Amino acid sequence: MYRTHTCGELRLENNDNTVTLAGWIQRIRNLGGMTFIDLRDRYGITQLVVNEHVSDELKTIVKKLGREFVVQVQGLVVKRQSPNNKILTGEIEIVVEKIKIINASELPPFTIEDESDGGDELRMKYRYLDLRRNPLLKALELRHRLAHETRRYLNSQSFLEIETPYLIKSTPEGARDFIVPSRMNQGQFYALPQSPQTFKQLLMVAGYDRYFQIVRCFRDEDLRADRQPEFTQIDCEMAFVEREDVLQTFEGLAKHLFKNVLDIDFTGQFPRMSYTDAMKYYGCDKPDIRFDMRICELTENVKGKNFVMFDSAEYIGGICAEGCAEYTRKQLDELNEWVKRPQIGAKGLAYIKLGTDGIKSSIDKFYTPDELQAIADKMGARQGDLILVLAGNKKITLGGLCELRLEMGKRLGYRNNTKFAPLWVVDFPLFEYDDETKRFYAMHHPFTSPHVDDLAIFESNPAEVRANAYDFVLNGVEIGGGSIRIHDAQVQKTMFKILGFTDEDAQIQFGFLMNAFKFGAPPHGGIAFGLDRWCAVFGGSDSIRDYIAFPKNNSGRDMMIDSPAAIKQEQLDELGIRLIDNPKA
Amino acid sequence: MYRTHTCGELRLENNDNTVTLAGWIQRIRNLGGMTFIDLRDRYGITQLVVNEHVSDELKTIVKKLGREFVVQVQGLVVKRQSPNNKILTGEIEIVVEKIKIINASELPPFTIEDESDGGDELRMKYRYLDLRRNPLLKALELRHRLAHETRRYLNSQSFLEIETPYLIKSTPEGARDFIVPSRMNQGQFYALPQSPQTFKQLLMVAGYDRYFQIVRCFRDEDLRADRQPEFTQIDCEMAFVEREDVLQTFEGLAKHLFKNVLDIDFTGQFPRMSYTDAMKYYGCDKPDIRFDMRICELTENVKGKNFVMFDSAEYIGGICAEGCAEYTRKQLDELNEWVKRPQIGAKGLAYIKLGTDGIKSSIDKFYTPDELQAIADKMGARQGDLILVLAGNKKITLGGLCELRLEMGKRLGYRNNTKFAPLWVVDFPLFEYDDETKRFYAMHHPFTSPHVDDLAIFESNPAEVRANAYDFVLNGVEIGGGSIRIHDAQVQKTMFKILGFTDEDAQIQFGFLMNAFKFGAPPHGGIAFGLDRWCAVFGGSDSIRDYIAFPKNNSGRDMMIDSPAAIKQEQLDELGIRLIDNPKA
Repeated sequence: MYRTHTCGELRLENNDNTVTLAGWIQRIRNLGGMTFIDLRDRYGITQLVVNEHVSDELKTIVKKLGREFVVQVQGLVVKRQSPNNKILTGEIEIVVEKIKIINASELPPFTIEDESDGGDELRMKYRYLDLRRNPLLKALELRHRLAHETRRYLNSQSFLEIETPYLIKSTPEGARDFIVPSRMNQGQFYALPQSPQTFKQLLMVAGYDRYFQIVRCFRDEDLRADRQPEFTQIDCEMAFVEREDVLQTFEGLAKHLFKNVLDIDFTGQFPRMSYTDAMKYYGCDKPDIRFDMRICELTENVKGKNFVMFDSAEYIGGICAEGCAEYTRKQLDELNEWVKRPQIGAKGLAYIKLGTDGIKSSIDKFYTPDELQAIADKMGARQGDLILVLAGNKKITLGGLCELRLEMGKRLGYRNNTKFAPLWVVDFPLFEYDDETKRFYAMHHPFTSPHVDDLAIFESNPAEVRANAYDFVLNGVEIGGGSIRIHDAQVQKTMFKILGFTDEDAQIQFGFLMNAFKFGAPPHGGIAFGLDRWCAVFGGSDSIRDYIAFPKNNSGRDMMIDSPAAIKQEQLDELGIRLIDNPKA
Repeated sequence: MYRTHTCGELRLENNDNTVTLAGWIQRIRNLGGMTFIDLRDRYGITQLVVNEHVSDELKTIVKKLGREFVVQVQGLVVKRQSPNNKILTGEIEIVVEKIKIINASELPPFTIEDESDGGDELRMKYRYLDLRRNPLLKALELRHRLAHETRRYLNSQSFLEIETPYLIKSTPEGARDFIVPSRMNQGQFYALPQSPQTFKQLLMVAGYDRYFQIVRCFRDEDLRADRQPEFTQIDCEMAFVEREDVLQTFEGLAKHLFKNVLDIDFTGQFPRMSYTDAMKYYGCDKPDIRFDMRICELTENVKGKNFVMFDSAEYIGGICAEGCAEYTRKQLDELNEWVKRPQIGAKGLAYIKLGTDGIKSSIDKFYTPDELQAIADKMGARQGDLILVLAGNKKITLGGLCELRLEMGKRLGYRNNTKFAPLWVVDFPLFEYDDETKRFYAMHHPFTSPHVDDLAIFESNPAEVRANAYDFVLNGVEIGGGSIRIHDAQVQKTMFKILGFTDEDAQIQFGFLMNAFKFGAPPHGGIAFGLDRWCAVFGGSDSIRDYIAFPKNNSGRDMMIDSPAAIKQEQLDELGIRLIDNPKA
């Protein structure tokens, strides 16, 4: 054993103990012949003192020390003259008797501090050094705790964690698969799972009743900041349940995690909102309900006043920013530019200020003060508020209002990262119609059950059918989604038909599942949560990367190990594949 | 909710309750107008009774029922006339009032009973039906519990579970990798990890101190009964530790699992044995020490008596089977054939019987009774025992004696599956020399530290260097293995040199690890356990397949989903690869 204590453990009651610590040198300061060293490990930081009258041998060693050296230190615990209440060991320090250098360190390419001076790329390349920084340690500790408490809760609810295979079969439905050539079956390929969806349904057919798995999933998609080619899901399924049972069970999980990871008590039910209302009042299917500021449609209220931008619009809507009537011209211009950025795509912003000196508006050429007041009344705006209005194509305008609402919420401090607002969004549409390929796609996946009330129009009017599906949204982030599944072979067959599968295609791709349904499938449903995202939201961060020990960059590269990489010709030969020299040829 | 209770829950105290159950029909019996139905779910079996005077409607439904139908049943709990103490609900039965068929079932292709009539291949194809059988349910429950208790113990010991990537980089050292073509980086490939070895070492460099992960690993090897292309490891690593710390910590884990999974208390330390002794006394590096019957070398004792088979042998050794002196001619002939099978490879078996009527032997033409008695004395054999002797090439003969010992142990009932004998095997050789490629290979892996006492001969005499490595063996099965790692860049460099890596090769393959060691690597070591194997040994089974929900067959195929399979040309095109039409060309 290299140590008697960790660097986060010693307190005043250890006064006068002789201890051995081991760790990394965080900082060295020389003060009038004395040397102060901060020694760091995973558990904390302890201050070491080397007095001026120590042996020459010890002095020589101390002179060699540098940042990030690994040392083993023996010394006496003493009370500090001036305690440091920022660290847990701040009441004591160690008077050093011996130091052994276990491993020297080159000068790290960036500082190992809470705020590092290293750029993104450099820190990715030296991820093992970046991981020494406290914010990343805290992030991975949070992840461990969140996963551990998830398992503890689900175990207590009789769920079994069952591992499903990673080498499975490619299915063109959904996102693009990563594939794995088979050496023993040349010309054939495995695929890495996008989710264990079919396997968990088969486990329900097999009678396993309450399944979960914290499992890696893979999607070969072009990447964005919050996407990784491999990500982790808390994947769950239950049999003999209806939607309410699933929601109750996993609301229980969320409350358990709030309590045991963040020490937050949630009483009462989480709110629920239909997909229709979410789109209408928040412009998206994952509303951030930490604040209100709902979108109010004005289409019928503002037309016919010869204002072309409104008269020609499919949809007009606004939000009311409380207490913002004093926004300056400059601020409003800047907001106007903000909504015109391609990410938002609005043509421009109209505003109505309810100032102390009366109503002022960018559109007062077209609307009388009374007409403007009527709009304000409809929106519930009061004196001191600022109304922001967008108009145009309905989908784009609602999306723009959604973004504008989030932006104003941020500026007004409504999106506090230590406040949490969970929400169930329910009754999603079952299908999306794609104009390009002229076919329906499953909004969730092809195993989602239609809403019971919509079964009559399932085949005749798919566009109007609601899914028995639900999303779990936290602070405007979609943390989880699930559905009650189809457990009837005939309904599943119809589903595939609406999705444009031939019987043969369906049989090749999902035959094993459809066959399984012939042998007694129970009613079942489930949900899957994105662990990376849940960690990020609990940690108050926008980026999931900090919560993944070894993430990939936006090109899918691991900068540290420099992967993907070329492989040897023998490996390709064994697999019976070759590279296309010119991929465009 | 489809049920008020599970099928394993009702007891006498529920007498007179009206309940709703849901599950699968296990069995239907008609007895004098009454119908008895066994209803099954994950939790147990409950007997349903349909009386003769029920409504015609109910009778009609009951007539339609068949094995494996999924039904929902409402009825009254009553005390049974004749309790069935084989099942937990055996004191009650349900007098049925209503039955709803939730899903019919075709006749299953094999019986869903503890002993099924289905062949291996059929049961693999319909794995979701095979999984309904009780032995498989118990196996997966055991696996869940073993994994859960592992996490509970390691969490209590301050270990953090940290996920490492699955899309990594191919390294030719070790077994063959599965590879994954990269679409975004055409011509380049990821590899699936054979273990998270380098990542866990980087986590130690990053200061994470106590890491674990229950993680899938992949090896593209030709398969045997106890091998799967994907398997699960309990992967662990600790920093600032020596061998003793690692052994103590994971002996603690094993004891926790014995206690909390099998309810077995282990007191005292697990025995330890050097690799040298294991090979000498048991003929292999994973001795089954549930029984003694050690191998005794006789090479120097039996030579020079003109028995050519012994005189020409490099090695002669025997085992003593207690109380087997009465083995018949037929039994001995059969054993003789057994050792001559190619799997054992012996030329023949010599025996010495210590019967009540004196010593008898297959070699008494060459040895006097006194000489035979001297052999018996050396082996500690007593009257009533049978000595079995093999001779020949040392490696093959020791291997043969190992197998013969296990076989005799099995025949004598020494290898009881409910008895557990854990063992640490230590001090493995660091290298194996391969005559074919004329180079050293790492016996464990290239990051294993040489034994401290052997550092002086590390470069000069690699063949004699012991590794600071250890295996955890349970009932003759290697459950886990690990080592103290190299944490010194110079030692690591020498290691790669002995393994025949050029500096450039080492840099390309492990450069990130060697670079990491330049920035302050702590001393560290760890271990990895095979979860599948641990489950199988705890469950008393020779096959890991029953402990894997969806295993692959010996050709690496998933028979149920029929994978691997061909993929679409577009997928290959996107990845920039093509198939070689004739792999031999």
